[in-house]
Amino acid sequence: MQKFDYDLFVIGGGSGGVRAGRVAASLGKRVAVAEEYKFGGTCVVRGCVPKKLFVYASQFSEHFEDAAGYGWSVGENSFDWPTLIANKDKEIDRLEGIYRTNLERAGADIIQSRAELIDKHTVRIVNEDRTVTAERILIAVGGRPSPHPALSGFEHTISSNEAFHLEKLPKAIAIAGGGYIAVEFANIFHGLGVETTLIYRGQEILNRFDMDMRRGLHKAMEDKGIRIILHSVAQSVEKRDDDTLDIKLSSGETLNVGQFMLALGRAPNTEGLGLEAAGVKTGAHGEIFIDDYSRTNVDNIYALGDVTNRVQLTPVAIHEAMCFIDTVYRDKPTKPDFETIATAVFSQPEIGTVGLSEDEAARQFEELEIYRAEFRPMRNILPGRQDKMIMKLVVDAETRRVVGAHILGPDAGEMAQLLGIAVKARLSKDAFDATMAVHPTAAEELVTMYQPSYRVKNGERVD
Amino acid sequence: MQKFDYDLFVIGGGSGGVRAGRVAASLGKRVAVAEEYKFGGTCVVRGCVPKKLFVYASQFSEHFEDAAGYGWSVGENSFDWPTLIANKDKEIDRLEGIYRTNLERAGADIIQSRAELIDKHTVRIVNEDRTVTAERILIAVGGRPSPHPALSGFEHTISSNEAFHLEKLPKAIAIAGGGYIAVEFANIFHGLGVETTLIYRGQEILNRFDMDMRRGLHKAMEDKGIRIILHSVAQSVEKRDDDTLDIKLSSGETLNVGQFMLALGRAPNTEGLGLEAAGVKTGAHGEIFIDDYSRTNVDNIYALGDVTNRVQLTPVAIHEAMCFIDTVYRDKPTKPDFETIATAVFSQPEIGTVGLSEDEAARQFEELEIYRAEFRPMRNILPGRQDKMIMKLVVDAETRRVVGAHILGPDAGEMAQLLGIAVKARLSKDAFDATMAVHPTAAEELVTMYQPSYRVKNGERVD
Repeated sequence: MQKFDYDLFVIGGGSGGVRAGRVAASLGKRVAVAEEYKFGGTCVVRGCVPKKLFVYASQFSEHFEDAAGYGWSVGENSFDWPTLIANKDKEIDRLEGIYRTNLERAGADIIQSRAELIDKHTVRIVNEDRTVTAERILIAVGGRPSPHPALSGFEHTISSNEAFHLEKLPKAIAIAGGGYIAVEFANIFHGLGVETTLIYRGQEILNRFDMDMRRGLHKAMEDKGIRIILHSVAQSVEKRDDDTLDIKLSSGETLNVGQFMLALGRAPNTEGLGLEAAGVKTGAHGEIFIDDYSRTNVDNIYALGDVTNRVQLTPVAIHEAMCFIDTVYRDKPTKPDFETIATAVFSQPEIGTVGLSEDEAARQFEELEIYRAEFRPMRNILPGRQDKMIMKLVVDAETRRVVGAHILGPDAGEMAQLLGIAVKARLSKDAFDATMAVHPTAAEELVTMYQPSYRVKNGERVD
Repeated sequence: MQKFDYDLFVIGGGSGGVRAGRVAASLGKRVAVAEEYKFGGTCVVRGCVPKKLFVYASQFSEHFEDAAGYGWSVGENSFDWPTLIANKDKEIDRLEGIYRTNLERAGADIIQSRAELIDKHTVRIVNEDRTVTAERILIAVGGRPSPHPALSGFEHTISSNEAFHLEKLPKAIAIAGGGYIAVEFANIFHGLGVETTLIYRGQEILNRFDMDMRRGLHKAMEDKGIRIILHSVAQSVEKRDDDTLDIKLSSGETLNVGQFMLALGRAPNTEGLGLEAAGVKTGAHGEIFIDDYSRTNVDNIYALGDVTNRVQLTPVAIHEAMCFIDTVYRDKPTKPDFETIATAVFSQPEIGTVGLSEDEAARQFEELEIYRAEFRPMRNILPGRQDKMIMKLVVDAETRRVVGAHILGPDAGEMAQLLGIAVKARLSKDAFDATMAVHPTAAEELVTMYQPSYRVKNGERVD
């Protein structure tokens, strides 16, 4: 007779929880994974995947424009939002099925219910009004868009969650926020023909990214007709009789739009989870405190992914899950490695980045060599599209190590992934220089910038 | 009084010649560069650049098809070949102007004429009926499509040179050859609506590439409607009264097409160049013999680029030019480095590759780990496009070094460029594994294949 119903109970069927549950089950552990909504989590259901499908959809308007320069005449075209939503939902359902199937095949129990902690070993299956016990519990419930109840008229706003299921496209939309979600959706809606305004309280969009990327994307977005209002916040939202919204800004201006989307960060999903009952400690934003091995202050309870508010990225949650497995079930204590994580912003143009921004590197290194190229990608020439591609390498002058690489332009995300190998491996600029160009590509610029564009000494640019 | 008119006389204004001439001039040398046609050479005028513009043009038919899955209705579209040609020519002229300007700015004399050697220090400027002398002569006259005069009806065929200037698109085209030029043009013509047949005498297209790439591309091309006939050659070409061509194949079949393009390799452009007068030795195909430092058997005459028939790639010619400069004018003898050159085939889907194919690696290493992924890229899902992406890493099991990386699919060329840094730097599979994924990208597959798909021991596949 086993002491507990399960060896491992996972709360949350997102990327991290499913990976941990699946691998633990495949190792012979008795595992349950509880999910209240859809398996796949934010990434699959209302994050990375549907977002990228929307990005693809929104790029066609530029394809149609660009065709003329290449000799094509394109007839009238039109876009049907419900078709996109239906096709997107079908794909999400397919992916959710794969997640479920993989869990089942590995031998995990799938529990379609919200689950809440009763004590450190007991979980209540809310929908089935029963409790189960487990030796270990893994909390991987993710996060959600931060609400903003202090905003007068907050009830009229939407978040990215709703943006994936709008019944119809508005004529105009405003998006509050300057992070990657705000920026990506601004480009999506604009590409689908919606008059789009981005409102951000800060000095420049995409805080913490390299300033060349931030300014370059800002310019590209404005050039294509997205309005960006900086140093401003929404002060109130009022609904008119025609269902449109009046947004009063701190600048004094009032915007009238069909939808107002807030993208003001994301918060851990810990409300009502029973953490207090189990004795699990959380921080000011509800994030679960954990040690280097994803263990909470309660010795048999672990947490990983967005609920811990470390690095909110799907591959990071998966990596944490694999480290959790190594640590707990393979007797190989392994800390997740958060150093030098490449990321992408699927704006239009994209940003791909790995390592340090110039500003951050200038704080860490005495002297930098900055290699920077700005050019029109070949595909833009015949269509007369003016978008510039920007590529930038940040090099520690002393060791010649490439400490940062930043790309703005088509396929920047794919490029960042592979640059990530080189930067993570701490390769030097000489290794880049020794690499033969592949012609004609855009990426060849990254291996043919032989002379620094400028240097930064003690934080000051010198030419 | 100087002994010679010039320090350096460069014959040929392509990538290699212009680079050498420009840099030598910028170092204060008295330089002339002679070009009989257009500056920029094969790459700019009738190679990489216009080819890639054609590739972009030919991709729109798939964009239009794919749009429906994303909710777009596209009206009737049509393609006008003369518009593409005119826009392409305008861009080539612009680029040629840049090449000229850069040479002029560096202080080189531009000579718009064919140039032929009279002796080891003397060059005849054919169009101006004068001779000049130079201390050193650099031959960078490139190559041209290999003719095939033995083919009955050869005079009715075209090469890639003519393909860039066809007056109109044929209804059907046949292309002979299995190399990258044949394959790229087959995809271009097909994408532009031409019924396309590829005829190749070998067993599989793209000799020397990784077999997964060869078979994968073959299948993708056939799936989209390009006919590929292997083990076959054209035996004769006859022109009908309606100007179409009947091509008799060795298989017994006869094809009727509007154009027949031969892409049977390229030959060095050395005919009538006066090499004998100067005493420069050439090989069986007309290629100029050189030593490791690009020097011919005549001590003051050098050659680089396609005319030497080493590696026929633009970046290689440029690299050779820079090595030539270091060796001759910077007192730093430098051999070109031909190891681990990443390349791309701009087929549709693209191929990007660096390092050894599985077969070649199996000859060099006792045991290999092969990591292989095949999947539909996300962008293809909603349109229902069945094209698979293939990614493959070839790893030496003993050292864990990644000795080959191969990609078939969208943006494979961009990926190969950046993988090239990692493979050239001899990074291990562990360095790939340590890299965090960028999600959702296609390239993330390259850093998330943790278990070998199979192994190869002593040349035999073992699972």
